[in-house]
Order: sequence, then structure tokens, then C-alpha cells
Amino acid sequence: MNLRTIIREVPDFPKEGILFYDITPILTNPAAFKYIIDQFVNEFKNKGITKILAPEARGFIFATPLAFALNTAFVPIRKPGKLPAETISAHYDLEYGSNSLEMHKDALSADDKVLIIDDLLATGGTINAIVELVKTTKAEIVGLAFVCELDFLNPRKLLANYPITTLLHITE
Amino acid sequence: MNLRTIIREVPDFPKEGILFYDITPILTNPAAFKYIIDQFVNEFKNKGITKILAPEARGFIFATPLAFALNTAFVPIRKPGKLPAETISAHYDLEYGSNSLEMHKDALSADDKVLIIDDLLATGGTINAIVELVKTTKAEIVGLAFVCELDFLNPRKLLANYPITTLLHITE
Repeated sequence: MNLRTIIREVPDFPKEGILFYDITPILTNPAAFKYIIDQFVNEFKNKGITKILAPEARGFIFATPLAFALNTAFVPIRKPGKLPAETISAHYDLEYGSNSLEMHKDALSADDKVLIIDDLLATGGTINAIVELVKTTKAEIVGLAFVCELDFLNPRKLLANYPITTLLHITE
Repeated sequence: MNLRTIIREVPDFPKEGILFYDITPILTNPAAFKYIIDQFVNEFKNKGITKILAPEARGFIFATPLAFALNTAFVPIRKPGKLPAETISAHYDLEYGSNSLEMHKDALSADDKVLIIDDLLATGGTINAIVELVKTTKAEIVGLAFVCELDFLNPRKLLANYPITTLLHITE
């Protein structure tokens, strides 16, 4: 399946000069959505993963069907002030702007084997912040997985220590 | 399965006097998560649903595994400024505060049969705003589904025209 023809390009969003890759057409195409989840299931089904982590909100879209299919736990990574119990937090830089992310303090233990997932890997700043959160818990990071990766932003420089699975590379 | 014993109560969140029902312990309990998705699959598998709608971010958590399991489309309902293509929007009141929601203008057509899903039904304001968005497209609303419903806030007053499926009623 050619995901490149399904993802929609929106120029100048969220601000002038940014070409935004819109994954919502995948979501209204059940065959494409199933293709993505099936690819991830095949890749990760025998890796002993105990918990799948994803940042809100688009990361949740792919992480929770995968957690359901693999019968693993799901740990939401959220913007500040959204998680009600005690949290740990990490700061990160975005392609446009900066932010913080939070995880419930009791969400991971040192025994966990973790997969981190998101729709799009751009600069890698968000994912690197999640990696930093996981490292404080001593859980093992088994891999990072993305529907789409913007190769021209060189996100792997920041994430060189972890295996990365990407279904669609965008090179220019 | 007794979901009541799994959901965590957090007092005074997000502000003093509010008792927050935290669904994240369901997400780290794969048997509970599977129970919820299976219940919804059984309820909605023969209803001809074409699209499942949910508000960000917690609504996504239950809507996308269900869309995957039912092989239907998923339409994300988002906060202002998050959806890149042309949108329609509706204003709503929350249990604490107010906000707007947006949907991509091309997400629904008059032929669609829609299920709206969220983790928690409180005052019904968010869901009523989504109902208003759907009505402008002339799509049919087949039902509304929630993991948890706060009966004491009387949300069904606002949503009297639609069948509601709730897995866990909280009465006091």
C-alpha cells in the first residue's frame, strides 16, 4: 500500500513556510489504517513488549489499536496539567515552538519493555523527551515506531541509540 | 469485570471540589481494556456504522481500537487550530470552563452512519457539541457510547434524542 498517496499535504500549517503532513485521510480509509496496524503488529509481536507509550493526541490514534492487538498496556504521555495523579515531566523543542510532556509516575517500572509510537517523526524532539522520561524509570526501550518520518529533518541524529521502525519515509 | 474498582478517583483535580475519575489504570490493564473494546464491538458490530467520532485526547483511546476492530473509519474531533484542512466548529460548555471543537469539513457525508464515543460522559456538553457538528452534515447518528457516565450530572437531559451505551454508571 502506498501511504504517500493517502497522506494529505497542507501548506503553511500551522504557520507560514511549514508543509504539514495530514494523516487524517488514513483514518477515513479503514484498509490503510488496518495496513498500518498490521505492519506494526508483525514487527513487534514477538519482542516481549509490556507497554506502548505515545504522546497526545495523534500518537494515541495508532498506539491504542496496537496495544489492543498485542494485548499490551498503553501509557499516555500528555501535555502539562492533563494527568491527574503524580507525574514526572520532560521539556522538549518542537519543529515550531517548545513544550513539556508528562507521564504518570507509577506508569512504568524497571521490568517494563517499552515501545514508543507516534504518527510522525519530524525533529525527534518530542520522542527524545519521552525517551528521557522512560530512562528515569529504568524500563527498557525496545523500539520507536512511526507511520511517517521526515528524513530531511535528520531526526535519527537525536535518537541514535534506539531501533526505529518507519512505514513511510519522506525525503524532500 | 468490575470497572469501578479499576478506575482511580483523584480528588480536587483539575480544580478544588472536583472528583476526577482517572481511566489510566484501565489502560495499564490489558484485560480491562480488551473487555471494554469487546463490549463495544458486540454492541455495534451489526449497526452498519461507517464512521466513529471521538474528541481528543482520551476519546481517541477507545475510538481507534474500536474502529480497527469494526473496520470502520475514524474521525478525530479536535480543539481549535489542530486540524490542518478546512474545518467546521461548535462551541460547548465543560463541567469546568468552556471550549470549541473542530471537525474537518470533508470528514462526513449525508450517507454516513455515525457512532460518537468518549471515555466519560459528564455534563454532556462536549458530546452535544459533536452532535451539533454531525447534524450540519446530515449524517445519521446511530448511537453514543461511553466507558463511564456520571449519572448524578444528568447528561441524558441534553442528549435525549440518541441511544446511549454506557459500561459503568457512577451514581453518587
